[in-house]
Amino acid sequence: MQGKFIVVEGLEGAGKSSAIASLVSHLQAKSIPTLTVREPGGTPMAEALRDIVKQSWHEQVTAETELLLMYASRAQLVANVIRPALAAGKWVIADRHDLSSRAYQGGGRQLGDDKLQTLKQLVLGDFNPDLTLLLDIDPEIGLQRARERGELDRIEQEALAFFQRTRERYLAIAAQERQIVVVDADQSMAAVHQAMINAMEHALFSSVRGGA
Amino acid sequence: MQGKFIVVEGLEGAGKSSAIASLVSHLQAKSIPTLTVREPGGTPMAEALRDIVKQSWHEQVTAETELLLMYASRAQLVANVIRPALAAGKWVIADRHDLSSRAYQGGGRQLGDDKLQTLKQLVLGDFNPDLTLLLDIDPEIGLQRARERGELDRIEQEALAFFQRTRERYLAIAAQERQIVVVDADQSMAAVHQAMINAMEHALFSSVRGGA
Repeated sequence: MQGKFIVVEGLEGAGKSSAIASLVSHLQAKSIPTLTVREPGGTPMAEALRDIVKQSWHEQVTAETELLLMYASRAQLVANVIRPALAAGKWVIADRHDLSSRAYQGGGRQLGDDKLQTLKQLVLGDFNPDLTLLLDIDPEIGLQRARERGELDRIEQEALAFFQRTRERYLAIAAQERQIVVVDADQSMAAVHQAMINAMEHALFSSVRGGA
Repeated sequence: MQGKFIVVEGLEGAGKSSAIASLVSHLQAKSIPTLTVREPGGTPMAEALRDIVKQSWHEQVTAETELLLMYASRAQLVANVIRPALAAGKWVIADRHDLSSRAYQGGGRQLGDDKLQTLKQLVLGDFNPDLTLLLDIDPEIGLQRARERGELDRIEQEALAFFQRTRERYLAIAAQERQIVVVDADQSMAAVHQAMINAMEHALFSSVRGGA
């Protein structure tokens, strides 16, 4: 049986990593085989692209370049890792996917959602997550957490207004798309994890329980 | 006064490098300031992408990934090198540009010209060369010349059928677009260079001479 594809999204410092660990242990307790991946990256070529897009350059990096590199990395990961894992029945949990590009490059960099949807269709066609969990956090809180973790990369060094636009785009898209569930990330870690697991149970298990 | 953007295109072994040298010396004799660039590459970030797209990987490189990396490199080069040079009045001579993607990824990799035109519009909008000179060569002859020059990169190692599809796409697009001039590259070097210079004179100088 084909596995499910679950994406965890959110700003820096939203708590994606620990949320993913919690989802994985919940699935493993159900004996569901899982694979975790992160974007950009996840294959040797995609990790090389991750380094390029995140490092600082002595030249302007255009918004289009950044977007194209995110999609190049994504195309490699989907073709070589995610699709084969799903076909082998694994559940794939991704730290960021397509929605990050729509929020960061479409919203933060102001490329607009039309361009983003056009590019997504061109590269991935109708390949979509079964569920996206969006950890929503005020960027001032999230960035403070990210700073405490260590040095910020090229994108993480953007001004606060960039992250505010990114958050707004995240929420605007989530309001329109049924497979995206927003979780308030400004709660205790236990509360965030429970909310995510409830959302996953509702979206991906309740219909199985209910039968056809 | 804005400079002109001239692109030299063709399969491996078509003779692009010596043709570009000949164009440059012709323009310099007219006291026109020139800048030569190559794609993929031409900025530090674009050269890093060139290395990534041309090297061999222990994973399948999808046609979409290859295309996106060509465009990421192109976006950097256009924004940071070509546009500023044209604005400063330089004539820019490029070894490959957009038409290479349409021929190699659109034709050779069979992504189709619709996808290519969509992506071009998304990344570059209406930015186009003033003149494209396509050095047309039978791929068997071109590849033999390229092999004699040294080791072939990942793309140059493709089967002959790939280059035949690429050449067909080159010629099909050239037949429809007025700013592309096809030059038979299976002639003496002197004859090829003279044909290119004649085409450039006709396209970019004759209207100036004639006045408004």
